[in-house]
Amino acid sequence: MGFWKSLFNTSGAASASQPTASAGVIAEAKGISENTRIFFSVDRTIDLYELEELCDAVGWSRRPIRKVRKAIQHSFLVITMWEQKGTRKRLVGFSRATSDHAFNATIWDVVVHPDLQGKGLGKALMKQLIKKLRNEDISNVTLFADPEVVEFYKQIGFMPDPEGIKGMFWYPE
Amino acid sequence: MGFWKSLFNTSGAASASQPTASAGVIAEAKGISENTRIFFSVDRTIDLYELEELCDAVGWSRRPIRKVRKAIQHSFLVITMWEQKGTRKRLVGFSRATSDHAFNATIWDVVVHPDLQGKGLGKALMKQLIKKLRNEDISNVTLFADPEVVEFYKQIGFMPDPEGIKGMFWYPE
Repeated sequence: MGFWKSLFNTSGAASASQPTASAGVIAEAKGISENTRIFFSVDRTIDLYELEELCDAVGWSRRPIRKVRKAIQHSFLVITMWEQKGTRKRLVGFSRATSDHAFNATIWDVVVHPDLQGKGLGKALMKQLIKKLRNEDISNVTLFADPEVVEFYKQIGFMPDPEGIKGMFWYPE
Repeated sequence: MGFWKSLFNTSGAASASQPTASAGVIAEAKGISENTRIFFSVDRTIDLYELEELCDAVGWSRRPIRKVRKAIQHSFLVITMWEQKGTRKRLVGFSRATSDHAFNATIWDVVVHPDLQGKGLGKALMKQLIKKLRNEDISNVTLFADPEVVEFYKQIGFMPDPEGIKGMFWYPE
């Protein structure tokens, strides 16, 4: 993480299952101007149209807002990333994880706005997510990676097919 | 499914998130004697020591009962399989799934007692699980399969690494 600094380190472990509005500040980031701050938050009161705009920006297929709301509500952990310039705040990243609250978690919907990619923010977002899952005593952190992001996740410490374990998806026969 | 018959088909779609004691009966099964019935259930009031015994029988590592209880409580869906001979009932199968209740589900801890393996019961258990997830409008049903069971899951309709998507596990760096 090097020069990343986050309030998550000092604000105590917020319960992932009962998230509060606790937020982390990244003090500095590669290529981000001085009057800009990047925040993390576990607050789930997200403007779902702003989230849709973020997902549009990376070319994801649209999903029904009603289902997105339900998915966020029933995720174990949601972490958003915000860019603040003066009083203006913009959603620039999102990630969430499902879990049994005991052994396993699976990470879904990791997204960083194209304007802010290549600055290490995706890695910082993932580190926050993993740290909070580990704080909750979840030992098995998993995800399903599209081919083009397998290398990104490897750099963070994810291993594809460890001991021959295969990620599988069910398709109607 | 062929000759399998299950009350799940006729008892209506119980809410997976608020499971009731609804149970399915398998009327017949390969190599199971006439006075034996196999039941499915979504009731979560399971004797966790009986579950531990089942997991011991297939050689799984022991896990803290406290965490198993929490994992069952926070799973989206739990399906157990029971063998009934006269008034005697025995837990012979278990499976559960985590989910965001909207898009994705991940199946964990699928187990069938060695005494009853090779009779098609693992497949029947999985079919029940998938059917209930699909009834809840979950479109993405996933799992992580150990190498020796990849073929089993393929037969049920699971595909490894579809479109190059990789199952990944995080390990501490």
